[in-house]
Amino acid sequence: MKTFFTLCLSLSTLGASAQNADSVTIRMMYNEALGKGKAYEWLRYLTKQVGPRLSGSANGQKAVDWAKQVMEKEGFDRVFLQEVMVPHWVRGAKEEAYFTVGKQKTTVPILALGGSVATPPRGIEAGVIEVTSFPQLRAIDPAQVKGKIVFFNRPMDPTKINTFEAYGGAVDQRANGVNEAAKLGAVGVIVRSMTNVRDDNPHTGGLRYATGVPLIPGAAISTNGADRLSEALRQNPALTFFFKQNCETLPDAKSYNVIGELRGTEKPDEIIVVGGHLDSWDVAEGAHDDGTGCVQSMEVLRLFKALGIKPNRTIRAVLFANEENGLRGGVAYADMAKTKNEKHIAAIESDAGGFTPRGFGIVGTSAQREKVTPWKPLLAPYGLTDIGAGSGGADIGPLAQSGTVLFGFKPDSQRYFDYHHTTVDRFEAVSQRELELGAASMAALTYLLDRY
Amino acid sequence: MKTFFTLCLSLSTLGASAQNADSVTIRMMYNEALGKGKAYEWLRYLTKQVGPRLSGSANGQKAVDWAKQVMEKEGFDRVFLQEVMVPHWVRGAKEEAYFTVGKQKTTVPILALGGSVATPPRGIEAGVIEVTSFPQLRAIDPAQVKGKIVFFNRPMDPTKINTFEAYGGAVDQRANGVNEAAKLGAVGVIVRSMTNVRDDNPHTGGLRYATGVPLIPGAAISTNGADRLSEALRQNPALTFFFKQNCETLPDAKSYNVIGELRGTEKPDEIIVVGGHLDSWDVAEGAHDDGTGCVQSMEVLRLFKALGIKPNRTIRAVLFANEENGLRGGVAYADMAKTKNEKHIAAIESDAGGFTPRGFGIVGTSAQREKVTPWKPLLAPYGLTDIGAGSGGADIGPLAQSGTVLFGFKPDSQRYFDYHHTTVDRFEAVSQRELELGAASMAALTYLLDRY
Repeated sequence: MKTFFTLCLSLSTLGASAQNADSVTIRMMYNEALGKGKAYEWLRYLTKQVGPRLSGSANGQKAVDWAKQVMEKEGFDRVFLQEVMVPHWVRGAKEEAYFTVGKQKTTVPILALGGSVATPPRGIEAGVIEVTSFPQLRAIDPAQVKGKIVFFNRPMDPTKINTFEAYGGAVDQRANGVNEAAKLGAVGVIVRSMTNVRDDNPHTGGLRYATGVPLIPGAAISTNGADRLSEALRQNPALTFFFKQNCETLPDAKSYNVIGELRGTEKPDEIIVVGGHLDSWDVAEGAHDDGTGCVQSMEVLRLFKALGIKPNRTIRAVLFANEENGLRGGVAYADMAKTKNEKHIAAIESDAGGFTPRGFGIVGTSAQREKVTPWKPLLAPYGLTDIGAGSGGADIGPLAQSGTVLFGFKPDSQRYFDYHHTTVDRFEAVSQRELELGAASMAALTYLLDRY
Repeated sequence: MKTFFTLCLSLSTLGASAQNADSVTIRMMYNEALGKGKAYEWLRYLTKQVGPRLSGSANGQKAVDWAKQVMEKEGFDRVFLQEVMVPHWVRGAKEEAYFTVGKQKTTVPILALGGSVATPPRGIEAGVIEVTSFPQLRAIDPAQVKGKIVFFNRPMDPTKINTFEAYGGAVDQRANGVNEAAKLGAVGVIVRSMTNVRDDNPHTGGLRYATGVPLIPGAAISTNGADRLSEALRQNPALTFFFKQNCETLPDAKSYNVIGELRGTEKPDEIIVVGGHLDSWDVAEGAHDDGTGCVQSMEVLRLFKALGIKPNRTIRAVLFANEENGLRGGVAYADMAKTKNEKHIAAIESDAGGFTPRGFGIVGTSAQREKVTPWKPLLAPYGLTDIGAGSGGADIGPLAQSGTVLFGFKPDSQRYFDYHHTTVDRFEAVSQRELELGAASMAALTYLLDRY
């Protein structure tokens, strides 16, 4: 029995001392990120010097060149580009929109939805059908919808504590509204912006045309604009709405996933990805979406290097191309992994904003999720308490097919949709500390994944 | 045995169904606060229409009048004022400060510390001794300090995850620096602002003169200013610093704690307080400090009323006077409670900003803290996971002597010291959702305290 007890004792001492060493390493990562982090200054450059960087744009290429250069300068073991053909949609001249009651025109702020077709050059003017859901629209006599503009006005549910849930409950209107409306003969679609805030910023975002349905233009209207239009419709159901947008889809363009790597010392063929997406909407500096995810991912590798931590496995920062309107980067990366027979054991994505870290969502088997349980006490002191089954991320999603365990970094969600896909998603909306805590949180998880 | 099992079963069913009813009520509180809350519009009025409201100022009285009126309009069972004499410090004309190297003057932003004496009318110009701690200062030959300005330049520690801890580790310089410096014959004190951000906003805050020590003027310098001054001193230790401030302490003035009450139906003599402080620094709109705590406290009572929840015990929203430079409101309230022999079973304070709720700190015996354990599953869905021994709040602190259990509302701490005691602590710095979540969190805890 004594031997057994001694064994238990040594095992538990070993366990405790390993935990202690891990705890010290993680503390060092936070100290480095919070005291000497580079993520914030990188973000400043990406948002202010590069700026908006929609797929296929000249700025998109500028972002690629810059990110590659930063990672090379940091001396990562290998920095390379993966070519990806991406959609090339351009907004063209600024949109116009107003509604008319009698002789009075009320201008409202709109933004064409990404991927939308233009209106005819002189715009569209038509009566408006306001609905809050697809079933409600389908219940209307198509004769009444024909020739009209459909106005989807279901707000995000403010009572959802996690705002991504509220977004998920409303975004069908933006993504699919044009198809539902076109089926009934509508000539255009206006969608209430996806945000809980009442303001004058329209939030753009992608739509996706279904096959076999006429292509009609779609635009987002600011929440204040939507409220004004809705109130005007209540008083004057026969009012007309005018909008004009000049967007266009050009031939696919060349872009790149930007990849930096620290090579594993023991199992270099096993890869851990940490990433975000480099593209942004054309109207936004793309700070929270997703400049923060990009600079945090690069910072993870920098933290390992700065602290002299040699990973056992290969760690890659992947800045994906084209998340916003195509996901071509994420798909191409998973294809490459498959073609080259690379073994991706885990992938972490940060694409929910640079806010205070709360935890990680996990996509994997329950056995895989349970492997994380012993790490919880190591992460809790940093506010990372929300760790469990959840979603990973759009860009790393395609890796799941090959059995990669996915981790979605979960920052606090309350302010994300204040900025999402708007002109106000800019550098000034990011808190340096919150950003840096996120980078350190991702580094800590990467470290634990690498070791265990 | 069967009877025993049946009993257990009914008890556990009862427990489960009570938990379920509580969970429904708490959900209703969040729905009301997030969908129809009044806290945000109240805050807009308090910050924009009333504005800065330092104790003793005309605006301080305006805030008292407004808060009383709001609570009366909401129809709380009883609304009353408790008179408190408060310090009346005024800043006077704007400060001036610069340092001189050779013929070159560099202007730096400063703010007189609250309670400080003025400089002589023409200001003070003197050499500078830079230190980062009291021991370091004490180790210097007093002859070198005599006639000089002491510059306390220890930054808040950025590696502390909770910023209040970092604040606690630096604020001695602001509160007590003048005394330490005056003992050695210094003529003035400049203190690095209490913030992790590098910017041009000086952060004011209170100092407290020790008895028997000469009164010398103290001011806060912005972090950028502190860095510039420190760098200049490194290159030119003999540079001189000039500052002029025109502040003054007038005779004590009359102010009030503003108190609103919902009367308990079963145990009206047992009181639960929920509060914040109504005063702010003179340079700040006092949004996060502590307009948010005030409007959240009023919102707690409004939520009970709006949902038709009759509390068993009496619930009081207390908007305390003079937290910033005297704590007279908190002391007077506890005195009144003692004099009237009122039984305060619990008190909740919100004075850490209107950010996303993370939990509550508890000041009480371990038995009292354990009573909260069964509530944790009810609060976790709202992100309230950090619940345990901690600090209560300055204003409710004096109630502890009579055995009241104190709860300090704990929002996320990362951005608080970006704004604290500066001109940028304004309405625009508050997220409506974060504010409303806080109000609902406080209401949920109040409800559980009332019931159990």
